Amino acid sequence: MSDAPIGVFDSGIGGLTVAAAIRSELPNEKILYIGDTARVPYGGKSRETIERYSIEIAQQLLDRGAKAIVIACNTASALAAPRLRELFPDVPVRGVIHPGAQAAVAATRTGRIGVMGTQATVDSGAYERAIADLAPDAHVYSVACPLLVPLIEEGDPVTDQVLSRYLESLVEHNIDTLVLGCTHYPLIKPAIARIVGPDITLVDSAHNCALALNDILAANNLLAPASATGRLDVILTDTAKRFLSSAQTALALDIASVTRWNNE
Amino acid sequence: MSDAPIGVFDSGIGGLTVAAAIRSELPNEKILYIGDTARVPYGGKSRETIERYSIEIAQQLLDRGAKAIVIACNTASALAAPRLRELFPDVPVRGVIHPGAQAAVAATRTGRIGVMGTQATVDSGAYERAIADLAPDAHVYSVACPLLVPLIEEGDPVTDQVLSRYLESLVEHNIDTLVLGCTHYPLIKPAIARIVGPDITLVDSAHNCALALNDILAANNLLAPASATGRLDVILTDTAKRFLSSAQTALALDIASVTRWNNE
Repeated sequence: MSDAPIGVFDSGIGGLTVAAAIRSELPNEKILYIGDTARVPYGGKSRETIERYSIEIAQQLLDRGAKAIVIACNTASALAAPRLRELFPDVPVRGVIHPGAQAAVAATRTGRIGVMGTQATVDSGAYERAIADLAPDAHVYSVACPLLVPLIEEGDPVTDQVLSRYLESLVEHNIDTLVLGCTHYPLIKPAIARIVGPDITLVDSAHNCALALNDILAANNLLAPASATGRLDVILTDTAKRFLSSAQTALALDIASVTRWNNE
Repeated sequence: MSDAPIGVFDSGIGGLTVAAAIRSELPNEKILYIGDTARVPYGGKSRETIERYSIEIAQQLLDRGAKAIVIACNTASALAAPRLRELFPDVPVRGVIHPGAQAAVAATRTGRIGVMGTQATVDSGAYERAIADLAPDAHVYSVACPLLVPLIEEGDPVTDQVLSRYLESLVEHNIDTLVLGCTHYPLIKPAIARIVGPDITLVDSAHNCALALNDILAANNLLAPASATGRLDVILTDTAKRFLSSAQTALALDIASVTRWNNE
């Protein structure tokens, strides 16, 4: 048993969708969440830079006593998870790609799966590999949605129009399942559902990631005692104003504290 | 006389519009340009973070021998110029806000001036203050264009539509002059001109900034000798691939070298 917090990180606010799933599935666990709002977004940056940021943040979470690391960002999961596991072999590290792939494989009937993600996630091919490992016969069609994170963060009215264009090719490929391959995307799930129609099942990583985290913690004897009280503390690398207003609009999450960390 | 380079920096590629004007006005000068592509964009971030990044980059330029600092980014000029002047009193520091304000005041006939900029630039009120200093009777109308930098960097077809919406209120205010208050915006000048029509004069900081720089260098006896050969060397904080393709599309600039700097 361990009363230490679970370390969760994302480039910004999107990973709160994962934090919310962990709060709901593992209500006794403390979560320490770092949002790298000073360097957001990650989705158009290089593997080298994303690895560097991820290592720095994971180290910070460990320095603050985290018993496990959740990479609540598809881009960082796709590009930096292997390196984090290599550098921190004694700590469970859970990304969101494998849980998302699992959800897609469980949901598809035809084996035709669409993936929407940031440019870096799609370029990495991480979802294709993760889905092929689980279902070698599946067909995966991916589309990069480079403007979607800024559009969601601004709540701009042009979002649906850009989204329709991004999703057009996926719908043409006759997919039956669509992976929301960026933690921001669940924030506009109703718009995505409206565009792709009722016959395509939308899946994301958050719920499966929380279940996988539960299994890893149990296997490592790291679950919080049943008597423990869970909570969510947030650390940001830029000031909190914009972050908090977005978080409150998007998710009804109870945040115990918000502090600032000046990363390097 | 000084053969040392002029240090120029921006959050990314936009400042190259200023570098191009300096190359053209001051052909004997060497330019050392830092593009902070690992942390781009700055426009939605806080004063504190933008100051921190600007100080770090200015220090890096000085460590590499820069004789003067040009902040070729409206957001960093608006939020960090005073702090840089305070920290580096012995080095000429030139931002782009004052040159842009000068260009606007020189161009306007009716005294009704529009300013488009990032959220941080507009929130800072820097253009209003700079224009009021030069022309106390001028009326200034500002509009934040939060999505414009990512739209320009992606070259997305929805750009004109979002731009029309952003500019609507300015046109209604019956302005006769519009300041392109972000170094990215000159890259889409034709689209802006098409939307606001032929009766509104578009001004940007680049040319006036190069002239102001010439004056400062002359006053401090820091101009390059007439025999010197100018050049532009670029340092980026992320990998160069996307940056260079954008730069080549946008500006016919001769870049002597591109190297990587892992900022903190």
